[in-house]
Amino acid sequence: MDVKAILRAVDHTLLAPAARWEEIRALCEDAVRYGTASVCIPASYVARASAFLEGRLPVCTVIGFPNGYDTTASKVFQAKDAIGNGAEEIDMVVNLGWVKDGLYDEVLDELRAVKEACGSHVLKVIVEACLLTQAEKLRLCDLITRSGADFIKTSTGFSTGGATFEDVALFRAHVGPQVRVKAAGGISTLADAARFLELGADRLGTSRVVRLVKEAECGGNQA
Amino acid sequence: MDVKAILRAVDHTLLAPAARWEEIRALCEDAVRYGTASVCIPASYVARASAFLEGRLPVCTVIGFPNGYDTTASKVFQAKDAIGNGAEEIDMVVNLGWVKDGLYDEVLDELRAVKEACGSHVLKVIVEACLLTQAEKLRLCDLITRSGADFIKTSTGFSTGGATFEDVALFRAHVGPQVRVKAAGGISTLADAARFLELGADRLGTSRVVRLVKEAECGGNQA
Repeated sequence: MDVKAILRAVDHTLLAPAARWEEIRALCEDAVRYGTASVCIPASYVARASAFLEGRLPVCTVIGFPNGYDTTASKVFQAKDAIGNGAEEIDMVVNLGWVKDGLYDEVLDELRAVKEACGSHVLKVIVEACLLTQAEKLRLCDLITRSGADFIKTSTGFSTGGATFEDVALFRAHVGPQVRVKAAGGISTLADAARFLELGADRLGTSRVVRLVKEAECGGNQA
Repeated sequence: MDVKAILRAVDHTLLAPAARWEEIRALCEDAVRYGTASVCIPASYVARASAFLEGRLPVCTVIGFPNGYDTTASKVFQAKDAIGNGAEEIDMVVNLGWVKDGLYDEVLDELRAVKEACGSHVLKVIVEACLLTQAEKLRLCDLITRSGADFIKTSTGFSTGGATFEDVALFRAHVGPQVRVKAAGGISTLADAARFLELGADRLGTSRVVRLVKEAECGGNQA
């Protein structure tokens, strides 16, 4: 798989709590230069990054993140607020306590409410796979498909584990054909990135892919 | 220091992403039984816990948590939403990217906006001390004092470090007399809890203090 195809699938991501504007700006510049799918950044930087990017690349942000236990009303507000600030894609975390309690009607209602708030904008639903049983993963594949959300996403990158090949293959096999799959968390080599795409991922949440391509480039320039 | 005085300062806390209602309910029961200051729980459980507690104990929740980079509008919404659901205390995380960029006017405006949304309800401002320089800590002591917020709080418990004796003493010395101090994150013994209070902490964010008292009690019953 060629590197450009990998880059086109990357949500170039910086979600560290203390990230400075200079870092976000550099992330945006790299994302444009290397042709990623989007930048994924904190909500409080969406307006500034959107103004900076001037439509050259979609801005993605996170809501109910990373713990997923904001109220539905909060998640809906956060989605609308982010879109109003220029976000074109929204990555939300499912309510994991509800999942653990089997409150699947509440989970589905929340997904539908946030998707309605997103309208035609892309909604990705983070399930935090490392905290789920196999049965819970399958149930969420079904709910996300029924909700009208655009993506199932493996991980926040803030829990005990990131994307696995097994989960990406499982999700691809069990969500509806209109639902895409985003692998995120711990993607550390180009070979792994390619493997996630081969297994059915449509997007990769990572900062390392661009960094690796950049380093390879610099090495080439010096040679 | 006697154990009851320590317990009276505890915000009995459970903020794990996948916490179930059964665990939250048990936390509430223990908090009432052992006489803590409050329970500190996820926003999506505030309405249910408030109904369960029926005013026996204040409910505290977290907003912009744990990363602090939600927009001001989102934090204001989350505060109002939580209070509407029965929360009496709000623990918010400061925007750490703004702190790192020296955008202190923005930080202060946000604190004032959230305090206004809280009205007479208690607002605690989490500074995530483990990520801050000494100069940033001192600046935040000043801003929090000027904002009208009720507490400065050391840590989320989700970053690289928790409360330290040094930070609690520093904050006590540098916030105004009307601002209280909450130590949170990693408080693991009754001796440490007592020491934090002696150094000027008014509240302790922890689940372990109640657990330790409970275990000592059980040991006593068996003897």
